[in-house]
Amino acid sequence: MAKTPDASRRSDRSRRAILDAALALVGEAGYDKLTIEAIAARAGVGKQTIYRWWPSKAAVLLDASLALAGDAESEGGWEGFPDTGDLAADLKHVLRATVDQFNDAKYEAPARALTAAGATDPALGAEFTAKLLEPQLALYEARLRSAREAGQLAEDTDLRLAVEMLVGPLTYRWLLRTAPLTHAFADALVDRVLGGIAKVA
Amino acid sequence: MAKTPDASRRSDRSRRAILDAALALVGEAGYDKLTIEAIAARAGVGKQTIYRWWPSKAAVLLDASLALAGDAESEGGWEGFPDTGDLAADLKHVLRATVDQFNDAKYEAPARALTAAGATDPALGAEFTAKLLEPQLALYEARLRSAREAGQLAEDTDLRLAVEMLVGPLTYRWLLRTAPLTHAFADALVDRVLGGIAKVA
Repeated sequence: MAKTPDASRRSDRSRRAILDAALALVGEAGYDKLTIEAIAARAGVGKQTIYRWWPSKAAVLLDASLALAGDAESEGGWEGFPDTGDLAADLKHVLRATVDQFNDAKYEAPARALTAAGATDPALGAEFTAKLLEPQLALYEARLRSAREAGQLAEDTDLRLAVEMLVGPLTYRWLLRTAPLTHAFADALVDRVLGGIAKVA
Repeated sequence: MAKTPDASRRSDRSRRAILDAALALVGEAGYDKLTIEAIAARAGVGKQTIYRWWPSKAAVLLDASLALAGDAESEGGWEGFPDTGDLAADLKHVLRATVDQFNDAKYEAPARALTAAGATDPALGAEFTAKLLEPQLALYEARLRSAREAGQLAEDTDLRLAVEMLVGPLTYRWLLRTAPLTHAFADALVDRVLGGIAKVA
């Protein structure tokens, strides 16, 4: 039997309350102390409601992070990866925005929690990478493909390698806190990566 | 009162047994299930012996990883970061060895455990980065400085950025399992990074 519109609305509301509770709690107490019980209490639902939709706290947090990424896109008026024809400017624009997100506690806490959990749990890590990371990497790859087609990159450029040369150092500096994560770093990284992959005349 | 030689030898033996037990257990059961109790039982020492030397399981694992890194250097006959004058060859040599370590379960389990724990625990992360990572990054930086002095890199090359362009993508692919971590990847990465930082004639 199909759900009534009211039941469906209630269900959406509970779902969103659960995801918001998971994000708030992971920011306050950290992933290790995050429990389904605490999420349920904060969201004002029963534990069974959560277990009906998600098998684990990691699964809740992954969906919460996907929802957060979706919010960021609609709030920021995201209209897709920019393609102005100026590859360096487009990459700097996106990498600077990523720096801002990594430095924003709202995004940082769940991102660190998921990265940490996925690092030691291969199944969760694979899901995290497939659902949250790969769609983002695909946007970079498409932009680089367009640049390659425009003759701005060497014809034999390995696009996946090029993408990881951009996001890898940024993620590394963020995760391991080896040095401050700034716009200047994002800009310099883009310039140095392009020096390596741009076709030399 | 100074320890007798026998007491000192027993103490060294206990210390090594504890570190070995921590490495074995983190590989078998994972970091979340690692406990001081289990380490003590495996090492054949009392819990208090461990607490006398280390404040937490993370501290034990960090020292165990430092000991493991030291072993790898002496076993591998490590004579410092190579400096043959051929920068690309030297970097490929070291990055390939790092790929092999990341793909070796003996190193991988504790490295994943420490990276994950440090990602969400800033104090532990800072210690991990300072004690285990920074000494390695300093070796890369010294090699790149030598290349810069030899006129092989642009004079304004930011050495720290260059180091992170090498280790960042490698660590990213390892940690997030976005693609296979191979020697071919290490070689291509070095070639592309150098294309970016080598002085163009």
